[in-house]
Amino acid sequence: MSNSGNDKKAPRYIKVHPNDNVAIVVNDDGLPQGAVFPDGLTLIEAIPQGHKTALSDIQKGEAIYRYGQVIGYATRNIPKGSWVEESAVILPKAPDLDHVPIATEKPAPVKRIEGLYFEGYKNPDGTVGSKNLLGLMPSVQCSAGVLDYAAERIKRELLPKYPHVEGVVALDHDYGCGVAINAPGAEVPIRTLKNLASHPNFGGQMIIVSLGCEMLLPEWISSEVNIMKLQEQKGFQAMITRIMAMAEERLEVLEKRRREPCPLSDLVVGVQCGGSDAFSGVTANPSIGYAADLLVRAGSTVMFSEVTEVRDAIHLLTPRAATPEIGAALVREMKWYDNYLARGSADRSANPAPGNRKGGIANIVEKTLGATAKSGTSLISGVLSPGEKVNTKGLIFAATPAGDFVCGTLQLAAGMHVHVFSTGRGNPYGLAMAPVIKVSSRSYIARQWPDLIDIDAGRIAEGEATIEEVGTEIFNYIIDAASGRRKPWVDRHGIHNSLALFNPGPLV
Amino acid sequence: MSNSGNDKKAPRYIKVHPNDNVAIVVNDDGLPQGAVFPDGLTLIEAIPQGHKTALSDIQKGEAIYRYGQVIGYATRNIPKGSWVEESAVILPKAPDLDHVPIATEKPAPVKRIEGLYFEGYKNPDGTVGSKNLLGLMPSVQCSAGVLDYAAERIKRELLPKYPHVEGVVALDHDYGCGVAINAPGAEVPIRTLKNLASHPNFGGQMIIVSLGCEMLLPEWISSEVNIMKLQEQKGFQAMITRIMAMAEERLEVLEKRRREPCPLSDLVVGVQCGGSDAFSGVTANPSIGYAADLLVRAGSTVMFSEVTEVRDAIHLLTPRAATPEIGAALVREMKWYDNYLARGSADRSANPAPGNRKGGIANIVEKTLGATAKSGTSLISGVLSPGEKVNTKGLIFAATPAGDFVCGTLQLAAGMHVHVFSTGRGNPYGLAMAPVIKVSSRSYIARQWPDLIDIDAGRIAEGEATIEEVGTEIFNYIIDAASGRRKPWVDRHGIHNSLALFNPGPLV
Repeated sequence: MSNSGNDKKAPRYIKVHPNDNVAIVVNDDGLPQGAVFPDGLTLIEAIPQGHKTALSDIQKGEAIYRYGQVIGYATRNIPKGSWVEESAVILPKAPDLDHVPIATEKPAPVKRIEGLYFEGYKNPDGTVGSKNLLGLMPSVQCSAGVLDYAAERIKRELLPKYPHVEGVVALDHDYGCGVAINAPGAEVPIRTLKNLASHPNFGGQMIIVSLGCEMLLPEWISSEVNIMKLQEQKGFQAMITRIMAMAEERLEVLEKRRREPCPLSDLVVGVQCGGSDAFSGVTANPSIGYAADLLVRAGSTVMFSEVTEVRDAIHLLTPRAATPEIGAALVREMKWYDNYLARGSADRSANPAPGNRKGGIANIVEKTLGATAKSGTSLISGVLSPGEKVNTKGLIFAATPAGDFVCGTLQLAAGMHVHVFSTGRGNPYGLAMAPVIKVSSRSYIARQWPDLIDIDAGRIAEGEATIEEVGTEIFNYIIDAASGRRKPWVDRHGIHNSLALFNPGPLV
Repeated sequence: MSNSGNDKKAPRYIKVHPNDNVAIVVNDDGLPQGAVFPDGLTLIEAIPQGHKTALSDIQKGEAIYRYGQVIGYATRNIPKGSWVEESAVILPKAPDLDHVPIATEKPAPVKRIEGLYFEGYKNPDGTVGSKNLLGLMPSVQCSAGVLDYAAERIKRELLPKYPHVEGVVALDHDYGCGVAINAPGAEVPIRTLKNLASHPNFGGQMIIVSLGCEMLLPEWISSEVNIMKLQEQKGFQAMITRIMAMAEERLEVLEKRRREPCPLSDLVVGVQCGGSDAFSGVTANPSIGYAADLLVRAGSTVMFSEVTEVRDAIHLLTPRAATPEIGAALVREMKWYDNYLARGSADRSANPAPGNRKGGIANIVEKTLGATAKSGTSLISGVLSPGEKVNTKGLIFAATPAGDFVCGTLQLAAGMHVHVFSTGRGNPYGLAMAPVIKVSSRSYIARQWPDLIDIDAGRIAEGEATIEEVGTEIFNYIIDAASGRRKPWVDRHGIHNSLALFNPGPLV
């Protein structure tokens, strides 16, 4: 990456790769026509922050390069110093999944990181938690109103008596009945619920509030001892009394949990980006990728996700598959999603969102090249289908849709302890089940939201920090958050968004 | 309908139509082998409550009749007095949508009901509300955590100062971004949100909490004056301050609303069934149908819904279309849903649920014949696609999936003031936006849930009340609930389930 200067007021651009013929404008308020960069390049029109200028004349039909990759083809002649606006860029075809190089990259000698620990809660089954929570889950949406009522009373009346329990989480969802429970794809929400219910942060304790007549049988998602059925209770008050009694039993058990040192190989981290802009791929995401590499070297599990934000860079990821089987699994997940979108008469061009475009991202290819930087440089040692639980160390591709909560929900189901989220436009969301660390791609948003952004990777664009520095900061924050020593802003405020299930099947 | 006796301990069955060759067992604990009915029929095996016995020998391949309709064909010889168990019944083909009789029924002379009023809140735009609520809606799921935090503070700090405002409702949902916003079907969740935001119970006031970069533009769902964007605020505290200020402005306006007499022609009622059993179609649903007829005679709007629970009786409904256009619209909605299910490799046989089956319902045809009884006998004067707003008086088919909250959400979007919900197995759900009146199909569940069931239609099976009596009771309860004079149990407890959007399109 080359940054064209360090004086904050002077015109600056960022060119990512030596072969790039475009670069993005760094300055907060964009730049006017006539602005001159330190290398002499002169803008022939005004360009907003994050948007691209042509570094040389690009003829109609020629490739436009960013990240050293083709992000599209010129729809018209683009003179040097002009704005490479979205409409000037034709979306290229997605890589042909039957012809990607698989497992061709040889592992570089990796220096293991030893001797680092986080303070986790060890569970009897060998798993480790990053929080100590009482979880309640409806097996069907019908039960959620009663469950929420009970959860409020548990918080108010019981939780204060159990100071070592950090919270009560109601895992509401809209699955369980009125769905095609035998149709292809139904396995996704079912295993998601099952894996959420057994998340290590719940310490093996759980309350499943079943109605009693639903399509999703509660035994599919948890063991008999955790299940109560509303239809078996003598009225509403009896339901609440029963849930409160189950809660008290479980709080007694959870209250005994204590944090103790656990090797980083017990740690599962999920990375995601949302509200991305053109800086995401040069500041926040590479920093997260640097932290991901450190985690992998320390033996942790790191998941990256979001199929539509990986699809156009799949030919850059399949070479990094540790085995041909893993490469094939990557291709399998891409094909599954291509088919899923086609069934709904959609494709990857439905992404990016208006905010991404406003932030300078021309299309899904440019977004993807920035997004995959979160994966760092490690070999990929595993692939999960949506909702599956992680069972491997190292860098894992956990296939999910790209929507923030759907991805967050599936990463939680996979067993995530800490979520790292990069944002360009800003997103204030939080998850009750695990800490969410917010990394901003621009300093603007860190200044705009001082009480929501945990780490400002925009300092990299400002020339005030390096990717290595910010990446190390993220790595340390992850360990601190997993240990409960440091709380991200969303947890300090208590901002917790509901989970969102991925149900690829129809409603009946 | 013929009831085989009134002595509660003596064996009793209900035969719905003179041509039926099966009848359901009424007795609470079912009946043992050897039980003798007053007409001499003797059971040759034990049969659980609600399940069917053969009234005559049915040969393999012969039609099985209930409600005077074919509910299936015998898979084996079924001797008189034996249990017509689910596995003995082959699901018939669904009616051919290209050959249903349309608008053939001539309207019977209807005696209008005049001079009845409910106490509603008149809005400046001419609509009327059944509640006085402050509504907050995220335009995208990302904003929901901040919105929920603000809604809690509004409830705690502001609401007590406005005694005429009945509640604060956070309309959380998981739409808005990460979705194929231009794909076919996206219009459904978008118009649902728009129509929810303009529900008359919010009195024209609303707070839309937008993030600022989402795919769903907030202007699509509400007017500019109601929208605040989180990305424009200087941090979290500023967001909360802004939402609180908007809330205070709106509470001032809402506080001035007063109930006043409104003709029943202003009233919109939605009917639904859930957790149905074999009694639903002979007790609760016909009673609701009776109430629906009274409402239609009084000029109200009554919506029935749930496509998969209408599909197999469509040939009985299309004749009741008031015009050929309305008949064609009914067929159009059925075809749309057939295609939607087929795209997901599912069909109507995914319904019924295990609890329905346990309650004696053999298949979707039997369920449907019971479910459509809710529509009464009026001509059908309108058809809505999912998420559309009602704009006609009389009996309306509002197409929705059959899941309780998805249906409830879409009926609310259509403008529903009061929801009437019949249940056989029991469902404790409530909606914050409108009262939900629970009608049980069996007295067992009314006894089991005395503080959740508002009206026990099971008394009809017990011989203690008639359909007309229970129907009139439901009619009166609807008027009382719409007027705020009488609160259903769920509102007294404060049980309010989240809404569930219907998004037929894919996630990206």
